[in-house]
Amino acid sequence: MRIVEAMVAVAMTAGLSAALACEQIAPRGTGDLGVVVERAAGRLQLVDTSARTALAAIDGLGDLSHASVVFSRDGRFGYVFGRDGGLSKVDLLCRTVAKRVVQAGNSIGGAISQDGKLVAVANYTPGGVKVFDADTLELRADIAAWYGEGRRAKVVGLEDVAGSRFVFSLFEAGEIWMVDLASGVPVVTRFPGVGREPYDALVTPDGRYYLAGLFGEDGLALLDLWHPERGVRRVLPGYGRGEDRLPVYKMPHLEGWALAGRFAYLPAIGRHEVLVVDIDTWQEAARIPVAGQPVFVMARPDGRQVWVNFAPPDNALVQVVDTETRTLVSTLEPGRVVLHLEFTARGEAVWISARDDDRVIVYDTATLLPLATLQADKPSGIFFASRAFRIGL
Amino acid sequence: MRIVEAMVAVAMTAGLSAALACEQIAPRGTGDLGVVVERAAGRLQLVDTSARTALAAIDGLGDLSHASVVFSRDGRFGYVFGRDGGLSKVDLLCRTVAKRVVQAGNSIGGAISQDGKLVAVANYTPGGVKVFDADTLELRADIAAWYGEGRRAKVVGLEDVAGSRFVFSLFEAGEIWMVDLASGVPVVTRFPGVGREPYDALVTPDGRYYLAGLFGEDGLALLDLWHPERGVRRVLPGYGRGEDRLPVYKMPHLEGWALAGRFAYLPAIGRHEVLVVDIDTWQEAARIPVAGQPVFVMARPDGRQVWVNFAPPDNALVQVVDTETRTLVSTLEPGRVVLHLEFTARGEAVWISARDDDRVIVYDTATLLPLATLQADKPSGIFFASRAFRIGL
Repeated sequence: MRIVEAMVAVAMTAGLSAALACEQIAPRGTGDLGVVVERAAGRLQLVDTSARTALAAIDGLGDLSHASVVFSRDGRFGYVFGRDGGLSKVDLLCRTVAKRVVQAGNSIGGAISQDGKLVAVANYTPGGVKVFDADTLELRADIAAWYGEGRRAKVVGLEDVAGSRFVFSLFEAGEIWMVDLASGVPVVTRFPGVGREPYDALVTPDGRYYLAGLFGEDGLALLDLWHPERGVRRVLPGYGRGEDRLPVYKMPHLEGWALAGRFAYLPAIGRHEVLVVDIDTWQEAARIPVAGQPVFVMARPDGRQVWVNFAPPDNALVQVVDTETRTLVSTLEPGRVVLHLEFTARGEAVWISARDDDRVIVYDTATLLPLATLQADKPSGIFFASRAFRIGL
Repeated sequence: MRIVEAMVAVAMTAGLSAALACEQIAPRGTGDLGVVVERAAGRLQLVDTSARTALAAIDGLGDLSHASVVFSRDGRFGYVFGRDGGLSKVDLLCRTVAKRVVQAGNSIGGAISQDGKLVAVANYTPGGVKVFDADTLELRADIAAWYGEGRRAKVVGLEDVAGSRFVFSLFEAGEIWMVDLASGVPVVTRFPGVGREPYDALVTPDGRYYLAGLFGEDGLALLDLWHPERGVRRVLPGYGRGEDRLPVYKMPHLEGWALAGRFAYLPAIGRHEVLVVDIDTWQEAARIPVAGQPVFVMARPDGRQVWVNFAPPDNALVQVVDTETRTLVSTLEPGRVVLHLEFTARGEAVWISARDDDRVIVYDTATLLPLATLQADKPSGIFFASRAFRIGL
């Protein structure tokens, strides 16, 4: 019997509450923890990226379709944004749901402030952003996305940026809003007329640029957060489905966009290509042919490779591109319906979810060989606690 | 009585060993932990970067002059490299020295492998690198820095790079060595003739370039780790003390070099300047006048600012440079003998040690106002556990 079990036994004998048993969990660091979303089951699998094993299941999280997770700055808590408007604060050490609020009818992701004190959620219904105290989940701000004549827009592309600020886009309104909560009271700066139907966005890894993709027209809306006074401008006018409206089997995720040095690697929309863009000029620098319509284009943390997954019918493949030569290095087949990829913080491994094979495969990014396979029930997103240390993730 | 204390009381009653009391430490994440080196006392102060407070003192670490610390990938353990050849594995949760070996007579820093499994130490006496199992501190490799006719060089500038590889420089030999431990047996690649007396080195944040400063001549030795077959080349031939051998009050630290976008910010040697270098071409792009001879030039994680401290007699100052305009933003006076600066991972705060005022000051990097002051006994280096998630730190 290990000491922890002995302690629990002693505690039980002494009549202490079993609900406090987490106090007896053996000490462990949180830097190598992560979660795999088991979408259909509404459950997270807690994983250990050092041992490459599953540690526990955490359920009671509601509808986890399209769920995403951010982490507290101590790495202990994950904030889970469910599709059903649920915001759950999960304790990765105690393996429990520490707090949960259903804060809207329909929501789509969130962010945590640079100082870790505020968690913001992007809501479709009712359209807006709600901001919560990261510790207590008490409501701190409720920003309704009003536009036009008393209508509320769906909010998408919510990102944390420097300061107590969040930036997000209003789908129907064609606006980008920046909210500053440094004073405790939300101060909103509106950027109207940025383009038709912004549908997703990203922040560059340095936190400087907010880029929104447009569903309703081609091009991207760019906000330089070092100079918000300069407003939003349009870049990459050819980025999109084009005049002939190519069929798109799945809209790419913008947060997956990869930056390696001064070049961004973007999923082309509707085309079997990865685009290379020079972010010094925001001009296209090259196109790399790939196996299908890319969904996520993710840079290995050192920028030497980008890894790409695809929309149907090519969603059993993952391709690896060398960024120096801009050529394909390898085509992998992790399993059916690859939904997500997550690199370890220092990039030695990547975890890939293959939903319809109910598994997560871990690859060595140097040898491109599998290191481990974990069983998971219809896995979708994979999120590691080391995200706590990056802006805009 | 809190539950933890109750448990301890119960455990004591039950006759369980007090030595196991760490098992009852309340769960906490490790992502916001850090240590401040109290050099004269041979002690670490464990700090909490969320609450901005000291949590505990950890002593029994030997001579901590010029000590540095790396962290396990779970964030629980710090590996402390003392000047006396001591390698200590400190448990940040249990607040104890978990293991300690005195592995050489005189050493100067170390590194942890990308996968977190190996810890390497750079030794002056006897000259070489020893590599240890990160878990047990058992010796895994002993690489003697032989050169010429049976002599051993002091090893400096030891850095972890992608794979199970470390790169380091041999001071008297004028060589750079790369050791690959992927097979379990060290495979050494030698780069002789890189320049006279390499004295310190850095790896760029993407892990691609290893740069060694030369004490014995001007210029820098550059190894492209994506292409080690191309060998080491000399860059920035004017970097150094110059032909007139300027007086240098303290050699700058190279690991402090800052990268913001494609520009590196370097401490000039002997001059009151920060140099700006375009790393696409390795040509000097600008010089920024500052208050004294810079020692550390550190980029805020978003690259918007660099913070600079100085050699005597200007070592009570810290200056903040805006990287966009390349102008001074502010001159701060944190206290006497500023030795080190450490940014939080997402850059909202910076911790600065002022040795002769026995304090650490925490600044808000947006307002440049102090947020907290911690008492510390002759503080020198400050190291946060979030370093675990970066290559070459």
